[in-house]
Amino acid sequence: MPDSEGNKTLMSYDPDNSFAKILKSELPCIKIYEDSQTLAFMDIMPQADGHVLVVPKESAATIVDLSVDGITACIKVTRRIAIAVQVALNASGVMIVQLNGAAAGQTVPHVHFHVIPRSLDAPLKAHAVTREDPAKLKRLAVL
Amino acid sequence: MPDSEGNKTLMSYDPDNSFAKILKSELPCIKIYEDSQTLAFMDIMPQADGHVLVVPKESAATIVDLSVDGITACIKVTRRIAIAVQVALNASGVMIVQLNGAAAGQTVPHVHFHVIPRSLDAPLKAHAVTREDPAKLKRLAVL
Repeated sequence: MPDSEGNKTLMSYDPDNSFAKILKSELPCIKIYEDSQTLAFMDIMPQADGHVLVVPKESAATIVDLSVDGITACIKVTRRIAIAVQVALNASGVMIVQLNGAAAGQTVPHVHFHVIPRSLDAPLKAHAVTREDPAKLKRLAVL
Repeated sequence: MPDSEGNKTLMSYDPDNSFAKILKSELPCIKIYEDSQTLAFMDIMPQADGHVLVVPKESAATIVDLSVDGITACIKVTRRIAIAVQVALNASGVMIVQLNGAAAGQTVPHVHFHVIPRSLDAPLKAHAVTREDPAKLKRLAVL
């Protein structure tokens, strides 16, 4: 779809998306990390135990719309979270996934990085399908 | 496996890996972009048309081993490539994937970001399986 300047956009920003609501404290989250530019929290429909999302506070739908400053802040935190989940969960692998546009599988119109711990003996679950027990998410978050 | 300090690492660095050889011009690549810290080139086993890899020049096996400076340089170029492939290929989605450790699907022990254009009508091919016709890669690279 074209934006206001006639350029094609991968996804329009919706200020009422669930991550925007989490940033405004209108929805709860299990917080892992926060600074002036970013927030990291447990994915409530994890693809693996310890699945964390990193979002910028900037209102941008996709990486194409996000400022260089915003993307830099996000990747620094994403790297820190990757190191943390690896250590906390003794993961033998970590996937970082960042999806832009419905065709790429993006479901929430606020740019986000998935940090997904991986092990050879646990298959990856489908993206954004099954809701996890909040108590289990809280246990993983404090590791 | 533990590194020299006894910490667990996700993957050991092999200075003879294929991306290190590309960086030393010991192997060819179809170059998309290069600066003092990064190189971007066509993936020879693409998961979709226009699949590009972004690598740091720093010798690091995974994101855990890469410096903050290195990761910052990589994500800035990754964002530029994502914008470029979206425009060049009229892609309706762009996936960014960064895999760490064999358990996450990493096959080359030099940290790299996948930039994969997506469309709703073309299924994603398996990772690192089928070699593409070099002439087709060159045609896509000049778009």
